[in-house]
Amino acid sequence: MDQRKIEQVVNKVLAVLADTTTADLAKDKIPVGVSNRHIHLTSGHVECLFGPGYQLTKAKDLKQVGEFAANETVTLVGPKGVLRGVRVLGPVRRQSQVEISRTDSFLLGVKAPVRDSGKTAGTPGISVVGPAGAITLENGVICAARHVHMQTEEASHFGLKDGDRVKLASDGERGCIFSNVLLRVGPDFRREFHIDTDEANAAGLNNGDLVTLQQ
Amino acid sequence: MDQRKIEQVVNKVLAVLADTTTADLAKDKIPVGVSNRHIHLTSGHVECLFGPGYQLTKAKDLKQVGEFAANETVTLVGPKGVLRGVRVLGPVRRQSQVEISRTDSFLLGVKAPVRDSGKTAGTPGISVVGPAGAITLENGVICAARHVHMQTEEASHFGLKDGDRVKLASDGERGCIFSNVLLRVGPDFRREFHIDTDEANAAGLNNGDLVTLQQ
Repeated sequence: MDQRKIEQVVNKVLAVLADTTTADLAKDKIPVGVSNRHIHLTSGHVECLFGPGYQLTKAKDLKQVGEFAANETVTLVGPKGVLRGVRVLGPVRRQSQVEISRTDSFLLGVKAPVRDSGKTAGTPGISVVGPAGAITLENGVICAARHVHMQTEEASHFGLKDGDRVKLASDGERGCIFSNVLLRVGPDFRREFHIDTDEANAAGLNNGDLVTLQQ
Repeated sequence: MDQRKIEQVVNKVLAVLADTTTADLAKDKIPVGVSNRHIHLTSGHVECLFGPGYQLTKAKDLKQVGEFAANETVTLVGPKGVLRGVRVLGPVRRQSQVEISRTDSFLLGVKAPVRDSGKTAGTPGISVVGPAGAITLENGVICAARHVHMQTEEASHFGLKDGDRVKLASDGERGCIFSNVLLRVGPDFRREFHIDTDEANAAGLNNGDLVTLQQ
């Protein structure tokens, strides 16, 4: 089959998917985004791990505008275990931060608390190894608190604002209602329910599955 | 400190804990029992893995009467990964069964469906290695469906019977309501909400934490 035919079919499928998504978003459905373990790095730490002057290279855009999965990966080394192939997310940040699941925290032997991104005061550190060097973070290891991203006007439509707590329900044999979920509202945000792999597995959810906003 | 003094203190602590538990059980609270990955074996498979005539040895009684964690462990070998130190639970059964989390299923590369214990038709198999030999199960690898054990009279008190579906709520920053939970009622059952490590981690629950029965 030639490349053009493949592209035509793919575009048709994408159009159908886009229609479905638009219809669902008009309602109270929110697509799930599952975060596997990952790390955010400062530009200085990128250079320590990957070499002087090194810059992250994009593998894939993420749903939230400007965020991307990099081609680069690192190894996390904790007192009890090691995790290889941990994805770096870009762009670089002002503070390095490691986001792992509670399952990972037991494997590594690092007691990561549930925290909102960026709130790393008093959290444990970890050693991070890259192809050109290693660093030891003094803190910054967290289990990211589940949260919903929503665009400002969408949030208004539901009578919601940044910082509100909402409930989200999933269906199926492992159906769950997630209570107490932080809502993050911004003009460029895309509607998405961010959970980690423990939460996804516990509720039998995959990337792109829809959960229902309960008020 | 001499052994007797230690025992006296431990017994006093246990008495206090028992009182708390009794008070809570009088209400609609159910203690959580977190199941880590484990395996149930037939007596034939015990002999294959640990040697001719071998019998499981008890490490610890479990909460449900007659069930125990054995001292013996095995290694699970899947197409994508290996899990060592997987606990054998006793007593032996008529059918061998492997219970893993969905996190484990990705690591092993085995697509284990969510199933009630014993319902293994059509489930995938796996290779199991012990100190004296190895077996390959044709099927029997499941993610155990979460369920509640309850003693017959307790269930009647709540107007519930075996096979009913209930909702259970946990508190805290990762608070969840688990929908659609199977109730298993028996004269010798001890009240317990059985979940796997993914479910425990997603909801921030530990062994012995209390969830609330919602009707």
